[in-house]
Amino acid sequence: MREVQQERAFATRQHIIESAAAVFDTAGFAGASLGRIIERAGTTRGALHFHFPAKEALARAVLNEHNSRMSAVVEEITRSDGCALEQIVAISKTTARMIDKDVIVRAGTRLLMELTYTGELPVAYRMWIDACENMVRKAIEDGDIVPTISPDAVAYLVISGLAGIQMVSSVLTGRSDLDQRVDEMWEVLLLGLVPADRRWKVADLLNSAAGERA
Amino acid sequence: MREVQQERAFATRQHIIESAAAVFDTAGFAGASLGRIIERAGTTRGALHFHFPAKEALARAVLNEHNSRMSAVVEEITRSDGCALEQIVAISKTTARMIDKDVIVRAGTRLLMELTYTGELPVAYRMWIDACENMVRKAIEDGDIVPTISPDAVAYLVISGLAGIQMVSSVLTGRSDLDQRVDEMWEVLLLGLVPADRRWKVADLLNSAAGERA
Repeated sequence: MREVQQERAFATRQHIIESAAAVFDTAGFAGASLGRIIERAGTTRGALHFHFPAKEALARAVLNEHNSRMSAVVEEITRSDGCALEQIVAISKTTARMIDKDVIVRAGTRLLMELTYTGELPVAYRMWIDACENMVRKAIEDGDIVPTISPDAVAYLVISGLAGIQMVSSVLTGRSDLDQRVDEMWEVLLLGLVPADRRWKVADLLNSAAGERA
Repeated sequence: MREVQQERAFATRQHIIESAAAVFDTAGFAGASLGRIIERAGTTRGALHFHFPAKEALARAVLNEHNSRMSAVVEEITRSDGCALEQIVAISKTTARMIDKDVIVRAGTRLLMELTYTGELPVAYRMWIDACENMVRKAIEDGDIVPTISPDAVAYLVISGLAGIQMVSSVLTGRSDLDQRVDEMWEVLLLGLVPADRRWKVADLLNSAAGERA
């Protein structure tokens, strides 16, 4: 296949994934029909099937794309100058904002929830917990998190808390208070996690977060 | 209708709800067919339709029953002798255990998650957050929670955290670490919520919880 054809095939594939995400986002996995996705993408059944044999493959592609966008955010922020604790807070706030702005992230989040029980899920949660645990260990080394707490327990609570807040905020306010609720989670968590001699950092972390939101 | 007939109709209705819960628990809302529920209940299509016009009505009945079982736990524990903070911890631990033991609670939890996006949900989360917020206010009055934190923010985080932990624990371990993860949530939260002069209470709260689990 010539290069230009490969590029075109890749662009079509990406366009189909974006269109499928838009349909999964509004209709959910069960409610999304291939017909609607084809209509939304303005493509043909043949073109769709060339790239994706079935709806499951489309959902998996959306989840993979979701995963790589989240990983990109994590990598970018961990390469930044901030200390580990700042980075943990920044990553959770940024991913909450991505749910609002990026249809792939929104659809991926919905699919993750809806497919929780199928046992076929990618191990996204495990990966996020592990990444967060590493950063918590780093923050403990930095003296920014008390050393008496299990890094795994903190990471599990942060990731579960974000997942739960996203879910409850969807139900109650269509996610309009999502950013506020993530900020409040950090207000409560930082109270206990940050040792007395680093409490001056907390106001900074929370204020800069409120500033970004405004 | 004579009393004995009314009783029999009520018993049939309850039996159908339990059977529907068992099917929703394993197959989810989309995967549950009326045929499977009828088969499971050992009843007829006519009897089912007499009580429930459609699958939506069955799901709603399971969610209502879930809600009243949760409310019963909350009422029982709030009538107990413990202080408000003890009660909040006890309620969250008990509801986590109920997910393991009670098929109605298990099915209700799954339906709540799966139907999050339909906009047709009962306001269960709102009710739980409000109930928790009242108890947090009481714990602040008791001096067991620091007065500088918003009771609504704490309640929102506790309920969202429990919902998220349930979801993540389902995905990663089929809920086998659910009790442990709820205990760990409280270890992290109590670090920040309990003022210095009440820290002696924390060990008690966490130990008694570990004892119950063992």
